Amino acid sequence: MSDFKIGRLNHVGVAVPDIEAAIETYRTLYGATDITEPFDMPERGLKVCFVKLPNSEIELIEPLHDKTAITKFLTKNAAGGQHHICFEVPDIHEAVKEMEARGATVLGEPRIGAHGTLVIFIHPKNTHGCLIELMETPKGDH
Amino acid sequence: MSDFKIGRLNHVGVAVPDIEAAIETYRTLYGATDITEPFDMPERGLKVCFVKLPNSEIELIEPLHDKTAITKFLTKNAAGGQHHICFEVPDIHEAVKEMEARGATVLGEPRIGAHGTLVIFIHPKNTHGCLIELMETPKGDH
Repeated sequence: MSDFKIGRLNHVGVAVPDIEAAIETYRTLYGATDITEPFDMPERGLKVCFVKLPNSEIELIEPLHDKTAITKFLTKNAAGGQHHICFEVPDIHEAVKEMEARGATVLGEPRIGAHGTLVIFIHPKNTHGCLIELMETPKGDH
Repeated sequence: MSDFKIGRLNHVGVAVPDIEAAIETYRTLYGATDITEPFDMPERGLKVCFVKLPNSEIELIEPLHDKTAITKFLTKNAAGGQHHICFEVPDIHEAVKEMEARGATVLGEPRIGAHGTLVIFIHPKNTHGCLIELMETPKGDH
């Protein structure tokens, strides 16, 4: 087994029923000044944006239709809530190999995430109820 | 209204039924090498430790008895799950004043948190279902 390990906490994924209302809350209640423009990820059926903090980010996620994984989450958590935690890894293919070697259930194949690099998700049963995203560190970052 | 704003994402609070099992997961599945020793916070009825990442931390939280806020959370989320997000603020008393001036519900009085500085919590109804902790930045940190 390699010495593979997670790196930075890239972001916390937060599901919300109305992304514009959530942006307004982070702006006016918490004073966040650096929030990216929301953009659609049609292949996943989601609209997302990032509230940038000095060391990490909050990803706000609104479903574009009622067949997304986030829609299901919002059915159980109508107001919204914390959906996943994303850690950076140097190489997503190494991450998949190591996660599987260590007995974890990787959900689906690596795909391009909201930051434009490859991501995977680890089933919550492997991390005490938390959905974990592993994301390849963007080249040139940090 | 002042220009008060949140700072760093200090940690993500994760409730778990068994902190030792969770530590083992972060150590062996995710390769985390810097995890603090769990310690009791008897006044809150919790045992906590921190999984230190390069830029932030995961706070693992296990209830010490069945009358804690975490126990209630675990009743609904038996395996565990994301409980709160903690942002740093320069001054907790200013934070309370500003949160209230901006219409938020501050839960309780400022009290000493797991990092030894004053903290407050903001009701989830004010942040689209997320429980937010505001924590005074430890002196000398960062």
